[in-house]
Amino acid sequence: MTAPTTPPNTEAGEPADEQELKALYQQFDAANMIPLWTQIDDLMPHQPTPRAVPYLWRWSELYPLAKRSGDLVPVGRGGERRAIALANPGLGGMPFATPTLWAAIQYLGPHEVAPEHRHTQNAFRFVLEGEGVWTVVNGDPVAMRRGDFLLTPGWNFHGHQNVTNAPMAWLDGLDIPLAYQNDTGFFEFGPDDLTDTSTPERSRAERLWAHPGLQPVALLGRRPSSPLAAYRWEHTDRALTEQLALEDEGYPGTVEAGHAAVRFTNPTTGGDVLPTIRADFHRLRAGTATAARHEVGSSVWQVFTGRGTAVIGGVEHSVEHGDVFVVPSWARFELRAEKQLDLFRFSDAPVFESLNQFRQATGTEAGA
Amino acid sequence: MTAPTTPPNTEAGEPADEQELKALYQQFDAANMIPLWTQIDDLMPHQPTPRAVPYLWRWSELYPLAKRSGDLVPVGRGGERRAIALANPGLGGMPFATPTLWAAIQYLGPHEVAPEHRHTQNAFRFVLEGEGVWTVVNGDPVAMRRGDFLLTPGWNFHGHQNVTNAPMAWLDGLDIPLAYQNDTGFFEFGPDDLTDTSTPERSRAERLWAHPGLQPVALLGRRPSSPLAAYRWEHTDRALTEQLALEDEGYPGTVEAGHAAVRFTNPTTGGDVLPTIRADFHRLRAGTATAARHEVGSSVWQVFTGRGTAVIGGVEHSVEHGDVFVVPSWARFELRAEKQLDLFRFSDAPVFESLNQFRQATGTEAGA
Amino acid sequence: MTAPTTPPNTEAGEPADEQELKALYQQFDAANMIPLWTQIDDLMPHQPTPRAVPYLWRWSELYPLAKRSGDLVPVGRGGERRAIALANPGLGGMPFATPTLWAAIQYLGPHEVAPEHRHTQNAFRFVLEGEGVWTVVNGDPVAMRRGDFLLTPGWNFHGHQNVTNAPMAWLDGLDIPLAYQNDTGFFEFGPDDLTDTSTPERSRAERLWAHPGLQPVALLGRRPSSPLAAYRWEHTDRALTEQLALEDEGYPGTVEAGHAAVRFTNPTTGGDVLPTIRADFHRLRAGTATAARHEVGSSVWQVFTGRGTAVIGGVEHSVEHGDVFVVPSWARFELRAEKQLDLFRFSDAPVFESLNQFRQATGTEAGA
Amino acid sequence: MTAPTTPPNTEAGEPADEQELKALYQQFDAANMIPLWTQIDDLMPHQPTPRAVPYLWRWSELYPLAKRSGDLVPVGRGGERRAIALANPGLGGMPFATPTLWAAIQYLGPHEVAPEHRHTQNAFRFVLEGEGVWTVVNGDPVAMRRGDFLLTPGWNFHGHQNVTNAPMAWLDGLDIPLAYQNDTGFFEFGPDDLTDTSTPERSRAERLWAHPGLQPVALLGRRPSSPLAAYRWEHTDRALTEQLALEDEGYPGTVEAGHAAVRFTNPTTGGDVLPTIRADFHRLRAGTATAARHEVGSSVWQVFTGRGTAVIGGVEHSVEHGDVFVVPSWARFELRAEKQLDLFRFSDAPVFESLNQFRQATGTEAGA
Repeated sequence: MTAPTTPPNTEAGEPADEQELKALYQQFDAANMIPLWTQIDDLMPHQPTPRAVPYLWRWSELYPLAKRSGDLVPVGRGGERRAIALANPGLGGMPFATPTLWAAIQYLGPHEVAPEHRHTQNAFRFVLEGEGVWTVVNGDPVAMRRGDFLLTPGWNFHGHQNVTNAPMAWLDGLDIPLAYQNDTGFFEFGPDDLTDTSTPERSRAERLWAHPGLQPVALLGRRPSSPLAAYRWEHTDRALTEQLALEDEGYPGTVEAGHAAVRFTNPTTGGDVLPTIRADFHRLRAGTATAARHEVGSSVWQVFTGRGTAVIGGVEHSVEHGDVFVVPSWARFELRAEKQLDLFRFSDAPVFESLNQFRQATGTEAGA
Repeated sequence: MTAPTTPPNTEAGEPADEQELKALYQQFDAANMIPLWTQIDDLMPHQPTPRAVPYLWRWSELYPLAKRSGDLVPVGRGGERRAIALANPGLGGMPFATPTLWAAIQYLGPHEVAPEHRHTQNAFRFVLEGEGVWTVVNGDPVAMRRGDFLLTPGWNFHGHQNVTNAPMAWLDGLDIPLAYQNDTGFFEFGPDDLTDTSTPERSRAERLWAHPGLQPVALLGRRPSSPLAAYRWEHTDRALTEQLALEDEGYPGTVEAGHAAVRFTNPTTGGDVLPTIRADFHRLRAGTATAARHEVGSSVWQVFTGRGTAVIGGVEHSVEHGDVFVVPSWARFELRAEKQLDLFRFSDAPVFESLNQFRQATGTEAGA
Repeated sequence: MTAPTTPPNTEAGEPADEQELKALYQQFDAANMIPLWTQIDDLMPHQPTPRAVPYLWRWSELYPLAKRSGDLVPVGRGGERRAIALANPGLGGMPFATPTLWAAIQYLGPHEVAPEHRHTQNAFRFVLEGEGVWTVVNGDPVAMRRGDFLLTPGWNFHGHQNVTNAPMAWLDGLDIPLAYQNDTGFFEFGPDDLTDTSTPERSRAERLWAHPGLQPVALLGRRPSSPLAAYRWEHTDRALTEQLALEDEGYPGTVEAGHAAVRFTNPTTGGDVLPTIRADFHRLRAGTATAARHEVGSSVWQVFTGRGTAVIGGVEHSVEHGDVFVVPSWARFELRAEKQLDLFRFSDAPVFESLNQFRQATGTEAGA
Repeated sequence: MTAPTTPPNTEAGEPADEQELKALYQQFDAANMIPLWTQIDDLMPHQPTPRAVPYLWRWSELYPLAKRSGDLVPVGRGGERRAIALANPGLGGMPFATPTLWAAIQYLGPHEVAPEHRHTQNAFRFVLEGEGVWTVVNGDPVAMRRGDFLLTPGWNFHGHQNVTNAPMAWLDGLDIPLAYQNDTGFFEFGPDDLTDTSTPERSRAERLWAHPGLQPVALLGRRPSSPLAAYRWEHTDRALTEQLALEDEGYPGTVEAGHAAVRFTNPTTGGDVLPTIRADFHRLRAGTATAARHEVGSSVWQVFTGRGTAVIGGVEHSVEHGDVFVVPSWARFELRAEKQLDLFRFSDAPVFESLNQFRQATGTEAGA
């Protein structure tokens, strides 16, 4: 932030003598003081003016580089994870997709193991393709398969193992930037080897919690994060299919015409899966488009299947399988589906809803 | 409540002249005033002393009488429902299972229809056996099948139709006594004919809401009652089976050794399905017993399958398929399973939790 | 509740043979079963039809009888309190003002002491006139003075002492009927003598909590009941005075023209002072009237000063200093002030708000 | 953040060929990808390692510079406010006291007016000394006097006027950095002239809300921020005095021996005054010290009166009237009072409590 030495543009009086003002600003500087009046337009804009930019990473570029790192970089204690962050070009070289959200491709080669650790940062995985890795969360092995959404809430020990002869890559989402910015994170190493190397079809978390509307009486009580470690593709897909079928039958259920969407939720509260991260899955029928929307807070999308166009801040990006893109705060955003478009999205909306900072508007309302 | 004319047993002074006191009490009576000191032991006992008694209705008696009413009493507008309430003998001839809870057997003959109405009283159905009835809740036809738990939250229009040649009977639970006692109920007639006579396998509510941990984005938001109209037996059974399997594998999940239990919950809040009624399903392995417990508030149980013993206030009742029994407030209660015992339970616990009146204790803690 | 032997008025079929039906009803009776169809109009009316009636007790009658009991009946362990309940004539001889609320005149003669006890029932005192009694709540002596509203939340030990040569009488409000009806109450004796006989101007609770918008950091946290033991008349009076002054100045603040009102609240939650009882204070300018209102749940009013008319269910009652009256659930209610009318009110609204049973309407909306 | 080209220190394999790795990292860079394994120690430290540093600004330096700016810089539309931010030297030249909190000295000369505007950023003022300014919040003029804590919750129009012949300076606190970092802020100009230039002793907000435990019935309902515009020094002082008096009498009330503290709270919720900012006032008796504490999140303190020592991260700073200091996240912190020490504090704790990121520990627990 540059501090101009010229006085502010003000109607209320005459500019001071240039020399005296310059001296004052030097004294401010020496005293670690900065005047508001030279900065206010940048600090308090009329509407959000994010430094993070709309950006698209293509799967066709992401995956080969992840694979190449699999050849060159071992995974193990110290580096902890073979994860490569998507760095928003607007954020000054930090490995952050948005000011609050971390998005990375994690790659685990055949029979590799990522050692156990825990941190207060909240994490999830979304599986674009492949299978064969089990993530062990708090001692509970959770299979990772195509289309699944998997949770590692803060402060749970976790590690991963690939039990197959094929590599596997997936999307990691965390609130690392938020914790980094605000100095809230704690981290601990766990065992180098996984605490449970079994490979069950269903995790114990699912066996306890993945029954619609049912909760185990022994484990009742509100929790800040969802106890359901895995949201399986078969359920997500079925829920979306039903919404579109209901629309065809003339009943409500879709967000708007041709646009089905489900929210991943915490069954103990009905709210978001993690205190800092919201996650949804969206399906657009071929040939449909969403309304243009503005939302406070940022989000990251990954195309699961299909093909279409993401229009972010007025710029069109054609998108397909695996592509990841960022929608900065308050950027005008719409989606158009050429072929049926299935997309995973995560955002920081729970943060700003909690703090009474959330707003949303359609394109028209926002005057944009 | 009798008002003795003798003065209270008090250490603090001499009894008044008997004649003057009698005159005073007559004046009180004329003025619609009643002294506390003659009533306090009854009004404010050292622990709850319910008028409702522990009581057991046998299915072998309930069902034939329900069936007989099917022969003799038509169902239709005015009487509204062929439901026969279980009247706790301690409650002075009122048709109430407990001070807050209504429990009734509802019987619908072949091709009969119960007309639509709505009321602020909250309702559910639990299906002991049979199938072939659809309950239409707010225009959404919901199949009723063995083991299912079905909701009709307050102020939703609802009617029932039996589309088969066989009669069907089930357990109705409502908060009628609570509403009756406190004068909170409203009621409206709906159409005489059902608004939707289709008979889908799954209700629209289930198609939108019965996906574990998923919510439709278009319908988000906390609701006082669950939007999930049906909790199917297949899910309940599987959840209980998993809890016992996890116990066998050495993991937590059961309430106590051999005792699996699930709570039916509202996915939008994680809390109880209805603001006034809690509902659980319990499974005890053959040969096991629960700890003795005391709980503020009353509950009603129905045996789904198996055989065992319910010990209520020290009295043993052998119970089997279809038997319904009441556990009054703070009565010592335990269950013993001879054969694997599956039971449905509902209670008024949400009322007393909301009002900070809830307490529970094991038999030992309660000193009883 | 009488069970008519005639079949219900139904459009859906023919009445059964009278004899068979009579036999069936006898079998029902023997089996502790009661049919809904003969009872539904009474059980589930179209709108609340309270058994509790609108009723007015005049202070000119209440006080002399309380005083007389002071002469004749000692106060002490066993009878516990010299409190005389206002018994709603509609409630079958029970000492209850409404189905949920207890209202009583408590009278303590010169230098008398009411021994300590505690109960889960929530209690408050409202002081119409007089002073000189200290109520000791959980060891904290709280002076009782004209216009004060004083709390004894459930399960706090409490006793009272009159340190003067004059008697004192006040209004007690509790949720005894609610606890009695639902079997939720626990009771314990405390010491016969008060744990603290000092007579400070301000209680320790007030010294910690009676600072507007401030809370002691050492005692933070949400509590089910207010920790502020006394709401002093000087604050209530000033708040009402300010509302009317703001109205005169053209600013919002009053409920409706000429009608100021404050709610007594729990500073740790912003909600009601007790989980089961709401308490307000109302002031009507001379010559004004409230809109007619209907409200689910019952309330009890006491006139503090002034003179006017309470119109309950269409019946006018002229009211003045000390008069207590009951507004049953959903009864149409309005107030008119002849002289400036100050009134204390308590109700069970928090119960029905918690349970999603609360409704209110203006006279017009309710169609009454 | 620098990306070393050397591979991570890992036990799990051999380093890759240096050249190939370098090429990969260049490809990452070109693709806006950054590996986690080279960054993890900085991104996810074992405990918070704030960039913000402990820092102290002396009033003896702050005030003269503020005064000088009063001579040289006009106040008016465009620059909006004559506020000079305290810029933490660790935050790269941004005008932020901590990553989330803005702290500034605002200075208003005789008869100056700061024009009306509104922003979603939440604001408060704390008055170290002086009087004569009225801040007009949403049309309500609020006098600012020594020791007062004054609120301007987000999106309320506000301006200030100094009606005296003397200048006045005070501390402004806002959540500007949080909004800036996350792109959540909106801003609008209001009228250049104040909407109400009257100078009442008490604001309308106080007349409605500053009655202990009382709320206006007409304005009930939970609000995200406190409706009480001013927390007056006379109440704060009295509350602190009472806590210490109770301690002397042997009763609880203080945080620890000799340490009284009050929280400024929102009467409609019992929680913090603003969704993003907590504010307390502390008093330490002469000769006492607090325990050492660590807390997630940052805070800013201003000494109101007295003299003592702030020990932050092991470094002692002697502090007196007007001095402002910052405690970064998780820094070990303790206070020692030489003379009775009165301090105002604000922090971002509500943010991290809402997001389940808050932790605190005593010095011993934190192992520091």
